[in-house]
Amino acid sequence: MSNSDNSSELNDVISHNVYFEGKVQSLGLETLKGKATVGVMKKGTYTFSASSPEEMVIVSGIMHVKLPGDSYKEYKSQENFHVAAGTSFDIICDDDVAYICYYG
Amino acid sequence: MSNSDNSSELNDVISHNVYFEGKVQSLGLETLKGKATVGVMKKGTYTFSASSPEEMVIVSGIMHVKLPGDSYKEYKSQENFHVAAGTSFDIICDDDVAYICYYG
Repeated sequence: MSNSDNSSELNDVISHNVYFEGKVQSLGLETLKGKATVGVMKKGTYTFSASSPEEMVIVSGIMHVKLPGDSYKEYKSQENFHVAAGTSFDIICDDDVAYICYYG
Repeated sequence: MSNSDNSSELNDVISHNVYFEGKVQSLGLETLKGKATVGVMKKGTYTFSASSPEEMVIVSGIMHVKLPGDSYKEYKSQENFHVAAGTSFDIICDDDVAYICYYG
């Protein structure tokens, strides 16, 4: 969509989060299920820690996810997984992935 | 997710687009259907113009959309609509909406 506007001091209306040297970025929103972020992960291997319980839903692409005590499993568009509070989990993306993460 | 990193010069790995004084923001990615953005719209009324054909899919929330020559229709999570190249369309959001927009 057009009408781009890059005045950085106005960006605070929506939180913009940058992780892993910019290879993972997300935007915050409120949903009926509570706070959430929609984001993009570039090709790469990432370890995240969840401070609150999280539900991740894949929007586009394929995410390989290793939850604590489990082996890597593949999640595609519309598929989801849950992460317990206080745990870490590993993600491998072979290509760009879009996701929505519900937390808190 | 934690591990936030706000070094702005590293953000270019993923394009971050800001519209309407920050009330609409999106992140770019490549998909099997071509280029796309995932984004968030805050409560508001917006007019967008599409330079290429676009498919919008709602990820979270409800979007009220008026396509050229039509009246407002409501689109919910997983629902989609198409926009022809070279046209403008109107969107009303009563609350936060997350979307993915395929174009190009």
